[in-house]
Amino acid sequence: MLPRSYESQRCSIAKTLEIVGDRWTMLVVREAFWGTRRFEHFQRNLGIARTVLTDRLGRLVADGLLCKRRYQEHPERFEYRLTEKGIDLWPVLMALLTWGNRHAIEGPPPVVVFHRECGGGVDDRRMCMRCGAALGPYDVRGRFADPADGHPVIREPRAS
Amino acid sequence: MLPRSYESQRCSIAKTLEIVGDRWTMLVVREAFWGTRRFEHFQRNLGIARTVLTDRLGRLVADGLLCKRRYQEHPERFEYRLTEKGIDLWPVLMALLTWGNRHAIEGPPPVVVFHRECGGGVDDRRMCMRCGAALGPYDVRGRFADPADGHPVIREPRAS
Repeated sequence: MLPRSYESQRCSIAKTLEIVGDRWTMLVVREAFWGTRRFEHFQRNLGIARTVLTDRLGRLVADGLLCKRRYQEHPERFEYRLTEKGIDLWPVLMALLTWGNRHAIEGPPPVVVFHRECGGGVDDRRMCMRCGAALGPYDVRGRFADPADGHPVIREPRAS
Repeated sequence: MLPRSYESQRCSIAKTLEIVGDRWTMLVVREAFWGTRRFEHFQRNLGIARTVLTDRLGRLVADGLLCKRRYQEHPERFEYRLTEKGIDLWPVLMALLTWGNRHAIEGPPPVVVFHRECGGGVDDRRMCMRCGAALGPYDVRGRFADPADGHPVIREPRAS
């Protein structure tokens, strides 16, 4: 197993990968972007083992990418929302999505991100290909192909 | 250990992380961008165990992100160059770098990327902040702080 630090590396990429380099971690962040906040919903949407999810959510809170809030008292229940530091990962997610659509997926892309306001596609600099606007995470929606019935599902990032 | 695939996930991000989600893999790609081609140089620049490096280079070749070329016959020696698929990871690296400089590194950023032609800084959409040009990987240079003597080292991506 890899150590969690790279001693000889004072490198922003290496440091970032120490925090979010774990694959499940990045998928938890992806889910948080699409508005998922509750443990059960992360679990259902990711199909991830509960122990692994508990660990990754805990690390993301410890690293300041998610904050944990109680939303119910009896019994006590918590939800997880992206902090500003977490929201700033949006360009990383979009870059991974763009590369994956081009090189890692066969057939049509499972998610197409588009500009909420005008419906234009989003280019690899996160600019709207129709109106030219520079887009932030809350300016877009995602059209998800649903393998079950073929009807797309629209999701949008939820502001924390 | 995580499985290398996420069955329930037809997702471009998940698929991309299956290929490049390993942290050393991404650092090998980073080095390849900055012109490193030979085993010994990857090894020296990354401070990575030879067995791990052999494994990661092999996977990157198998996944089509690097190509392996013989540059010497006696004894046989190979070098590794990014393919187009590998070069397309540049936006991912830049997004990781930008996030890391902002959130993961204390003090001045260890690498500053700038537009080769006019010297302008690069924003988080990979546009030149001075002249406004949309930048590709071969339009930039990196200024690396050298912890040994304090003098910066300039590196630039080498086209394959």
